[in-house]
Amino acid sequence: MPLLFTRTLFLIRRGKVVHSSNFRRNVTVVSQISEEVSKLLDLKAQLGDDGPPQKFTLKTPKGTRDYSPQQMVIRNRVLDKIITVFKRHGAETIDTPIFELKEVLTGKYGEDSKLIYDLADQGGEILSLRYDLTVPFARFLAMNKISNIKRYQIAKVYRRDNPAMTRGRYREFYQCDFDIAGQYDPMIPDAECVKVATEILSSLELGDFIIKVNHRRLLDGLFEACGIPASSFRAACSSVDKLDKTPWEEVRAEMVGEKKLDPDAVDRLGEYVRMNGGEELADTLLADPKIGGTAAAKEGLQGIKLFLKYCKLFGLSSEISFDLSLARGLDYYTGIIFEAVLLGQFNGETAEDSVANKSKENSAREVGVGSVAGGGRYDNLVGMFDSKGRAVPCVGISIGVERIFSILEANVARQKAASGEVLRTTEVEAFVASAQKNMLTHRMELCRDLWDAGIKVEMSYKQNPKLLAQLQYCEERGIPLALVIGESEVEKGIVKVREVTSRKEEDIPRDSVATEIRKRLPQCS
Amino acid sequence: MPLLFTRTLFLIRRGKVVHSSNFRRNVTVVSQISEEVSKLLDLKAQLGDDGPPQKFTLKTPKGTRDYSPQQMVIRNRVLDKIITVFKRHGAETIDTPIFELKEVLTGKYGEDSKLIYDLADQGGEILSLRYDLTVPFARFLAMNKISNIKRYQIAKVYRRDNPAMTRGRYREFYQCDFDIAGQYDPMIPDAECVKVATEILSSLELGDFIIKVNHRRLLDGLFEACGIPASSFRAACSSVDKLDKTPWEEVRAEMVGEKKLDPDAVDRLGEYVRMNGGEELADTLLADPKIGGTAAAKEGLQGIKLFLKYCKLFGLSSEISFDLSLARGLDYYTGIIFEAVLLGQFNGETAEDSVANKSKENSAREVGVGSVAGGGRYDNLVGMFDSKGRAVPCVGISIGVERIFSILEANVARQKAASGEVLRTTEVEAFVASAQKNMLTHRMELCRDLWDAGIKVEMSYKQNPKLLAQLQYCEERGIPLALVIGESEVEKGIVKVREVTSRKEEDIPRDSVATEIRKRLPQCS
Repeated sequence: MPLLFTRTLFLIRRGKVVHSSNFRRNVTVVSQISEEVSKLLDLKAQLGDDGPPQKFTLKTPKGTRDYSPQQMVIRNRVLDKIITVFKRHGAETIDTPIFELKEVLTGKYGEDSKLIYDLADQGGEILSLRYDLTVPFARFLAMNKISNIKRYQIAKVYRRDNPAMTRGRYREFYQCDFDIAGQYDPMIPDAECVKVATEILSSLELGDFIIKVNHRRLLDGLFEACGIPASSFRAACSSVDKLDKTPWEEVRAEMVGEKKLDPDAVDRLGEYVRMNGGEELADTLLADPKIGGTAAAKEGLQGIKLFLKYCKLFGLSSEISFDLSLARGLDYYTGIIFEAVLLGQFNGETAEDSVANKSKENSAREVGVGSVAGGGRYDNLVGMFDSKGRAVPCVGISIGVERIFSILEANVARQKAASGEVLRTTEVEAFVASAQKNMLTHRMELCRDLWDAGIKVEMSYKQNPKLLAQLQYCEERGIPLALVIGESEVEKGIVKVREVTSRKEEDIPRDSVATEIRKRLPQCS
Repeated sequence: MPLLFTRTLFLIRRGKVVHSSNFRRNVTVVSQISEEVSKLLDLKAQLGDDGPPQKFTLKTPKGTRDYSPQQMVIRNRVLDKIITVFKRHGAETIDTPIFELKEVLTGKYGEDSKLIYDLADQGGEILSLRYDLTVPFARFLAMNKISNIKRYQIAKVYRRDNPAMTRGRYREFYQCDFDIAGQYDPMIPDAECVKVATEILSSLELGDFIIKVNHRRLLDGLFEACGIPASSFRAACSSVDKLDKTPWEEVRAEMVGEKKLDPDAVDRLGEYVRMNGGEELADTLLADPKIGGTAAAKEGLQGIKLFLKYCKLFGLSSEISFDLSLARGLDYYTGIIFEAVLLGQFNGETAEDSVANKSKENSAREVGVGSVAGGGRYDNLVGMFDSKGRAVPCVGISIGVERIFSILEANVARQKAASGEVLRTTEVEAFVASAQKNMLTHRMELCRDLWDAGIKVEMSYKQNPKLLAQLQYCEERGIPLALVIGESEVEKGIVKVREVTSRKEEDIPRDSVATEIRKRLPQCS
């Protein structure tokens, strides 16, 4: 008996309370099992894990939020615009599960791996929530042996990071990814990714932005030329990556202190990673014997030059900044890397932020930045999942929409404060109202006819709502038409159509109500 | 030293490796901390948690799947149709995080609680993946003190259930929920939920279906009248709920065996729970002194009668079946409950399944069933989250779309086999092709102009693709137009437009290419 008790407790703890239907059909052991099951169920009842609810702080988990109907309207507008651009560039879409086998994510994110959410071990596989959409995409390609695809994916990812929710940094957040996989000629798909990002940022009307670009091979070459040992490239890379938010002195201190890099090498590196410009900078560096003489740096610089040429053909040049401080934290990048940054007052920052940023040594046009998109080339990631190591070269861009949502939410709030304009959260075209008591039957039938005709209609769920309350509801919600019926309308076989804004009323025949309403809808909206 | 080691290991295990930037600004303790940090980082490096990738079976977690581009096209078509109906009924939408504080979910799902996915304890809050959208919705209402709303939500939920993926039963799956919250007159919103479900199932063209309805108060009354003790109502309910898939004899065995209910009471109950019909059945039961004399049963039956009356006003009657075997497993229902079931051959079952089902004692029209929607009234759930227990009455319906996706995927596969018709996964309108070598610059510029004009265009990412390969790609992908340029076209300032299907070609001026292509698009699609 104590043995059974221990075992059953163990089973209960692992969430494995046995379900009788799994055993039912196996007649020979049925009685033995039912006996054990009933003991288990008794024990479970004693444990009382479904007891009465306790009171606790009502909140969403740290770093997450609900979206209200107003926020959803803004979110869906943004996502629709993004999807329009992705489709314009001929992308298909896929979806993958929110969690992956933990092994799939291991060794892909460098220092950021500690931010991965793990699921509890409830028996079975060891799982983690996805950290981005790129690694699951690579797993998808390897698993299905797909060697070329242009796909977009819009989905939530999870990072146990320090949230900064007013600035749009969450632990659960959307990514909108566009990736081109396949063995192609250099920099053509890479330039299209940046073209896609600029089309999206322009269509969202977020003000000016720049797209910083750099090349991982150039960074490797710079590290090498400055005397940083190859084993420390990744560590140096993740330090350099902080230059957008952190002054050089602090980054230097991290490299020398924590990362134990040679101070002279770090100082040599410091001369370079603060440079930015255009094609002429690539030429200057190519001509620099210390840099241009390094194979990796040369490869990176030639890549950058080709990339900038293609960008120009795609109509981009003022938006692009070749920036040696751009490093991108993630391990998997192998070639071009990019990051889009908003400039100007539309980036939702406070005046204080702006002053703080101005004191930095970055050039003026990069003041007040917030990264809203990033990406790059990752040619080896798919190969990491293939048993024969077959590589599928990939390049992609990820739009960080949470920050964009925050900016547009602030804009809508400003508009509301300025003009009193309401953001409609439904698309209701007409409201079926009653002028008298006891009209429920007629209201329901009228709604039915309009729904069946495809018109967006609602009515009050009360037996006898007051007319004034119904009309007020229409005004508050921005519903263009009210359809009023009373006994006399029913008798005459008509419906009174009221334009909510102008309060103009007109009688229309009940049996052609859908057609008549549809006629009136365009001029009301 | 051993103490530090133990402490740092502990920190590392909890995923809390300290990030230096948190400390940097506090100058007084900086040196002390950096020393400890660098020791931590050394230790972390020794642990090697970012080692080289190991080979392992490439798969998605048990019970989950990726969606291919083809599957996404079908999924998005289904979701669009569902959203159209939700909007037609005036619903707003919200979103909530994929996980909740575990306490939020505790005590809401009865026996199914064991199927909840928990997150690992990585320090901080104890979290679980959402099991449905209803409990998070109730939490949202209580947290924001919302007393009335009509909302829809389409999102994934998670259940550690036994997957049956060919039948559309997954561990990660979509739910499409429509709920009406607010203090209204009886059964009006309840009937609209069923109207919404019928509009959705009709618009998806899934063949015939019925919607079974029952009432939790009637079930309580039946249990009471049959002599089942009140403390066993929930247990009895979850047994009765299995009647759609399990013969009465097995359900009876579970109630008498595992659940220790009185066999005579169970037999009395068995007489009732196998009944189904319409309004006349409600009248018969009201006239039955044993049932109609029980307050709870009477309340349930009168509710059912009113509900059926409203359904008729909404144009529903043949689709509705009052069915006493319907119980719904979840704890939180308090009033009307419903479940939609597909009939006929469109439900994706195999011939074997069909034979197996026919041997059951259910009536003929319920053969080969699969539940595709379910819901009901839950008047007390929101109150469970309110510190003062303030209730917000709610009723809702949830569409189980995974099964619908499976059915429609099978239909598309059948169509493809029959007619060779391809399902397009992109919306590309024109492909920019080159007839000769060295046209990349011109192709890129043409693409740029068309993208900027809002036309959906793609091109090959190769420097010098073969014309035949490019035209073949257009045919395979169903792209309607190919825009061919060579040296002579560039010289003459024209573009050759080729209708891919008819192979008809025509020259158009390069500088009005977007306008000219737009003119040709409607007749091609």
